[in-house]
Amino acid sequence: MIERLKQEVLEANLKLPEHGLVTFTWGNVSGIDREKGLVVIKPSGVAYDELKIEDLVVVDLDGNIVEGELRPSSDTVTHLVLYKAFKDIGGVVHTHSSWATSWSQAGRPIPALGTTHADYYYGEIPVTRQLTNHEIEDAYELETGNVIIETFQKLDLDPKAVPGVLVAGHAPFCWGKNASEAVHNAVVLDEVAKMAYHTVQLNPQVSAMDQFLLDKHYFRKHGPMAYYGQK
Amino acid sequence: MIERLKQEVLEANLKLPEHGLVTFTWGNVSGIDREKGLVVIKPSGVAYDELKIEDLVVVDLDGNIVEGELRPSSDTVTHLVLYKAFKDIGGVVHTHSSWATSWSQAGRPIPALGTTHADYYYGEIPVTRQLTNHEIEDAYELETGNVIIETFQKLDLDPKAVPGVLVAGHAPFCWGKNASEAVHNAVVLDEVAKMAYHTVQLNPQVSAMDQFLLDKHYFRKHGPMAYYGQK
Amino acid sequence: MIERLKQEVLEANLKLPEHGLVTFTWGNVSGIDREKGLVVIKPSGVAYDELKIEDLVVVDLDGNIVEGELRPSSDTVTHLVLYKAFKDIGGVVHTHSSWATSWSQAGRPIPALGTTHADYYYGEIPVTRQLTNHEIEDAYELETGNVIIETFQKLDLDPKAVPGVLVAGHAPFCWGKNASEAVHNAVVLDEVAKMAYHTVQLNPQVSAMDQFLLDKHYFRKHGPMAYYGQK
Amino acid sequence: MIERLKQEVLEANLKLPEHGLVTFTWGNVSGIDREKGLVVIKPSGVAYDELKIEDLVVVDLDGNIVEGELRPSSDTVTHLVLYKAFKDIGGVVHTHSSWATSWSQAGRPIPALGTTHADYYYGEIPVTRQLTNHEIEDAYELETGNVIIETFQKLDLDPKAVPGVLVAGHAPFCWGKNASEAVHNAVVLDEVAKMAYHTVQLNPQVSAMDQFLLDKHYFRKHGPMAYYGQK
Repeated sequence: MIERLKQEVLEANLKLPEHGLVTFTWGNVSGIDREKGLVVIKPSGVAYDELKIEDLVVVDLDGNIVEGELRPSSDTVTHLVLYKAFKDIGGVVHTHSSWATSWSQAGRPIPALGTTHADYYYGEIPVTRQLTNHEIEDAYELETGNVIIETFQKLDLDPKAVPGVLVAGHAPFCWGKNASEAVHNAVVLDEVAKMAYHTVQLNPQVSAMDQFLLDKHYFRKHGPMAYYGQK
Repeated sequence: MIERLKQEVLEANLKLPEHGLVTFTWGNVSGIDREKGLVVIKPSGVAYDELKIEDLVVVDLDGNIVEGELRPSSDTVTHLVLYKAFKDIGGVVHTHSSWATSWSQAGRPIPALGTTHADYYYGEIPVTRQLTNHEIEDAYELETGNVIIETFQKLDLDPKAVPGVLVAGHAPFCWGKNASEAVHNAVVLDEVAKMAYHTVQLNPQVSAMDQFLLDKHYFRKHGPMAYYGQK
Repeated sequence: MIERLKQEVLEANLKLPEHGLVTFTWGNVSGIDREKGLVVIKPSGVAYDELKIEDLVVVDLDGNIVEGELRPSSDTVTHLVLYKAFKDIGGVVHTHSSWATSWSQAGRPIPALGTTHADYYYGEIPVTRQLTNHEIEDAYELETGNVIIETFQKLDLDPKAVPGVLVAGHAPFCWGKNASEAVHNAVVLDEVAKMAYHTVQLNPQVSAMDQFLLDKHYFRKHGPMAYYGQK
Repeated sequence: MIERLKQEVLEANLKLPEHGLVTFTWGNVSGIDREKGLVVIKPSGVAYDELKIEDLVVVDLDGNIVEGELRPSSDTVTHLVLYKAFKDIGGVVHTHSSWATSWSQAGRPIPALGTTHADYYYGEIPVTRQLTNHEIEDAYELETGNVIIETFQKLDLDPKAVPGVLVAGHAPFCWGKNASEAVHNAVVLDEVAKMAYHTVQLNPQVSAMDQFLLDKHYFRKHGPMAYYGQK
């Protein structure tokens, strides 16, 4: 059963270079089997064009390696924090994709400026606060996960409605109901970040889009009233 | 007869990813048979690399499905409004192409800044007003079409001379004498939007090009005095 | 003999899409046989992927068609003005390449900001004045050539040392000792225009590079003291 | 033995066009055999798609050609200065890659703005001072090397921790423990330069990242406490 999850996680990882989201090995995708409580994740520092299904690492939610001969991604603990806090997600992806990372570095959330954004992210894509020195030194990857959770709690955001975040001074994390949807949301994030960049350069005073239009587009694609796509 | 139109609409849709105008399924092309009063359009949410001719949907001008097993594009009603108001057009395309969408989101029309623009668009490419909440809630796709028509009426524009528009906070719609020309105009729009972006960054005080130069280039390619291309 | 020139002009034209300098048919390359006084040029509006050697048009320096069944490029007269004024050039290219065209539209010359520029262009790449209404109406393509010559005369520039120009509100023309070198210079121009754009955004007060460094790099590649490349 | 180094240098050179770091022949990679005191370097002005292993030139640390029929890169002397001053490096690369060159031309160092930067460069990527006229005229390539060394000495930088530099008004040089790693660092530099460009446009007041986060990421990948990648 975990074999099917591995296949899905492998394919999702391989979509990262295909969509131009990664340079070298700067990214990792995981998927979870909620029943078994097991997470499949990319090994650390392995090139995408050499990645094979047997390289994937299986860990439990405490980070113990259950299967696999390689070290899991150095960001594994961050993934695990997200899985534990966001009960409905099935896949997580971390990249240093160029446009989203630029917003992360600038410490600015990405405002909802148009319907492309609204089709996937129900409102502003938040940026976390900086980590404290203590958090960085003590348990960096754990605290990276914690600051994401903290951000969502403070802003009272639903991780299903806002499936991504910018970690200040670092880069984005995205998620979805499975690994494939997480990567889909990461592709959208980078394109939305690119267009938002150009929009604010063209109109520095631009304000966030109208809430009615945001609702219209988001609910055209999500929830019981959705009418986008096929039944 | 409609089979030939379907083939043309299929090919025009497939040109969108080829020219880098779409991410995932963010775009749709339609074509009309004016005699029969039938429109062929892309189905909603179907990936371009899986799109087959039998997936295309045929609707009448009231939006009734005449042929096809899939739901038509969620933007179908907007296409229909354009066909009804702009009697001479034969194809319509909607994309979220990156540069044109950035101008749409910024709520700025694209000024005619050079001969590339003038070769295809006779003057500024307009941006619509924002839709009202009432319009968004009531009949969003219909009102998106209506606000385009309103924009062209208020500015007294000829849709043949200005074959595209930016919908504020959303993205562009383009058209042409057929589906293929509509896509051609969408490619031009995005390139013109890109160059206009860089031009206004280099020279924020740049003014629109001289009317004589605009006339010269537009009429070098269009109308009875055209001398560009082969006879 | 002219067959060899045709082959060279064909290959030079095909390099334009290869280097990403053209969208659709927005560009044309020509080459001259100085002894015969004949110019080979791309036909107007023919797609690059359909362009064949027999489509090329041969004209004399007065613009009379000597060979070929198609209309020559609508910019042919501009090419001819350049060949007549700049006696040492053997090839001319016109494109609407994205970065150089943005500077043309902004009406700004491209300052020499670094050694990449200095390796090919001995100083600022000039921008012409706008054409007058009279010039546009009367003999547009001829006057486009004339304003380029006027620019080089006023600034006392050597067309061999500065093998390109930005036509205000329009796009660049480049040239070289043959068609191939003209295209090479057009590729350089667009890359130099791109880097200059980002440089002035990073440092709006940046001044042109030191004359000693400009001399060093230019003469490392050009003239009797050159030591770049193989003997 | 030197054959293996040649193969490595050849492959490293071919990675430059593969990663989009060079236009035409604007780049060169070398590698050193420290025991023999011999450097293998790309010949000057040879196109990458025609470069063969027998074209590579072998020079000693004084620049004497030991093997090879072609002229070595015109930047060879700069490479040699770096090898002599930075005892631990095994490969050097020079490119005019678009984003890094824009920062070089702007005369601005690239601040450490995020973890992507910190993963490879331990702090700001410095920019040299301009060369004096005397230095340019007298021994340009030698002085280009000297000004890099001077920059590292003045700022008290460790070339292993900061494996690259921007030469003002020119372009970057990068290095590494071998030719392959040097190119790797050049790819990183250009991507970091790109993201830093967009970051400072989004937030002109952005300050360099926290030292604790810089330390965390740098030492996650480098030194005895590293835990990124496989053992």
